[in-house]
This record gives sequence, structure tokens and C-alpha cells, in this order.
Amino acid sequence: MHLSEGVEWAAHCATLLAALPSGATLPATRLAEYHDLPGPYLAKSLQSLTRAGIVESTTGRIGGYRLGRPATEISLLDIVQAIEGSETFFRCTEIRRRGPSRVAARAYAPTCGIAGAMWRAEQAWRDELRAVTVAQLAELTMQQAPLAALEKGVTWVTSVLSTRRPPTTS
Amino acid sequence: MHLSEGVEWAAHCATLLAALPSGATLPATRLAEYHDLPGPYLAKSLQSLTRAGIVESTTGRIGGYRLGRPATEISLLDIVQAIEGSETFFRCTEIRRRGPSRVAARAYAPTCGIAGAMWRAEQAWRDELRAVTVAQLAELTMQQAPLAALEKGVTWVTSVLSTRRPPTTS
Repeated sequence: MHLSEGVEWAAHCATLLAALPSGATLPATRLAEYHDLPGPYLAKSLQSLTRAGIVESTTGRIGGYRLGRPATEISLLDIVQAIEGSETFFRCTEIRRRGPSRVAARAYAPTCGIAGAMWRAEQAWRDELRAVTVAQLAELTMQQAPLAALEKGVTWVTSVLSTRRPPTTS
Repeated sequence: MHLSEGVEWAAHCATLLAALPSGATLPATRLAEYHDLPGPYLAKSLQSLTRAGIVESTTGRIGGYRLGRPATEISLLDIVQAIEGSETFFRCTEIRRRGPSRVAARAYAPTCGIAGAMWRAEQAWRDELRAVTVAQLAELTMQQAPLAALEKGVTWVTSVLSTRRPPTTS
């Protein structure tokens, strides 16, 4: 059982967007370039993030993606569920109600004990992911990054954003 | 992202085996019959449980499956990992080390902050599953089962086991 690679991509893109100066945007092609990811596939992940309100896109010459709400209000769980959906990992097919011990469905407790235990574990997973915000990830990423990588990243972002400023009137 | 149905099957089979009288075994065909599951597919799940030492099979006319160790020493995590393997859900492809901010690999902290957060959540999931034993599941299942289902189950098990007793000498 694996999460799709889109989860990793989306988490990194949201983290980078959280680190941009206020109001700045990056188009999908630049997000792909920064993370060395295949553009067309990344575009699908970005569409999933857009549907979930995690990012929003602006149009026009300097259009692109930015976070759809403050980074402090986007959890890692929001990102995982935007990409993977929010179904449970464990699907209960009510095996307890089959076979020679079967009785009328209404006689059973609402939740099978095995399913209940599986779902409590998933709840613990969700609780952990819900406690981590994109703002925290952005801060941690900048704290942990090698200084040289941070400098190269800032240089790249500054350069890209400088070519995307609206023309000034003279 | 979903766990395979084999996890549900294996958990129910282990729970039934935990409820059998000491020393009793059930063949794969009977485990399939009790749970109304497809025998050939269930056999694969039972093979996975065997490889993990969760069940063991005895051969001969009254051969079949029994638990490979006490039900108090088999966790729900053991069962899930026997079927699904123990790889993490989240796979880190080290995106932080790619693209224009890239520097030498040795300069980076051992674990990406995003991967670390994802893996801490998985640890919480595993911790919950590890805390649940097959003995607890068997007790809970018998407590929760409708009385009529419990009676039908016991009748079925008793009947099956009675036809599998070694011949008595007269």
C-alpha cells in the first residue's frame, strides 16, 4: 500500500508557495522546474490541490499558482486527502455477516470489531497529519536546508519573480 | 490508497483460529466456507500468514491451520504487515535535492522535513495496530456477535471439528 507520488509533489509545491513573498505566484512549469518534476503529471496534482482550495491560480501574463488560504490553515492531511481522497485505507466488507453463522443484518453491532480497530489506527494517522501545517513545513524546510541550497533557491525564485513583474509605467 | 482485501480476510481467519479449542485446526477450505470467501484467493493470504509465523499448517487427515503462536502475541499490525509488507506508505524521492537549488547530497539533513512528518503519522498508525492483539479481537468478536450468530458459529465449528477427530481405538 503506497501513497501516490503526487502527495510528495503536492507537499513540496505547497511548501514552496508558502515561502514566496506575499502575492507572488509561480506557474506550473516553474513549479515543475524547481522540483525537477514532469510538468504534465504535476499539473494534475496542482488541479487536485486547486479543487480542494489549497492553491488557486491567477491568469494573465504574470499568472500562476499561489496558496488558496494562509499556510497556517493548510494541513498536511488536507494535501494528502486532496490527492488521495478521503476514503479509509481499510474497507470492511462485513465478513462477520456471511457464511454459516449469518443472522439478520439488524442484529449486528454497527461496526465490526476488526474494522473498528483498523479505523482507529487510521484516525491516529489522520490526527498526526492534521497537526502539521504547510507553514510549519515551510519553516522547517528553510531551517533544515543546507545554506548553499537555500541561497540557490532564493536566487532562483528572485530571478523568476523579477521577470514576472508587471511593467512599470514611466 | 487502500489495503488489500486480504487484510480483512486474514484478520477474520486469525480471529476464528484464536477462538478454536486448544489444538484444533481448520483447513483452508473450511476457513473459506465459514467466511464465505473465495478459497484459492484466501489460500494466498493464508500462505502469507504462514510465512510470517502467524499461522502454521499441519498435514494429514485432520491437518489444517492453527495459530503459530499465542493469540496474545499476534498483533493486528503483524497481520497487516504479513499481507501488505512493511514498507512505508509514503516514499520519499528526495525532491528537495533536485532542481536549481540542488547542492551535494551530503550537505542535507538525513530526513526531509516533509518525509519526516509523513512517517511520524505512519508510526502513529502502526502503534495503534500494534496495541491490538488477535486475542482481544477474538474476545471482542464474541462479545459483540449477536447471540444467534454466536450459537450458529459454535454449532458449525463443533460439527466440523467432530468430523475431524482422529479415530478412537475400541
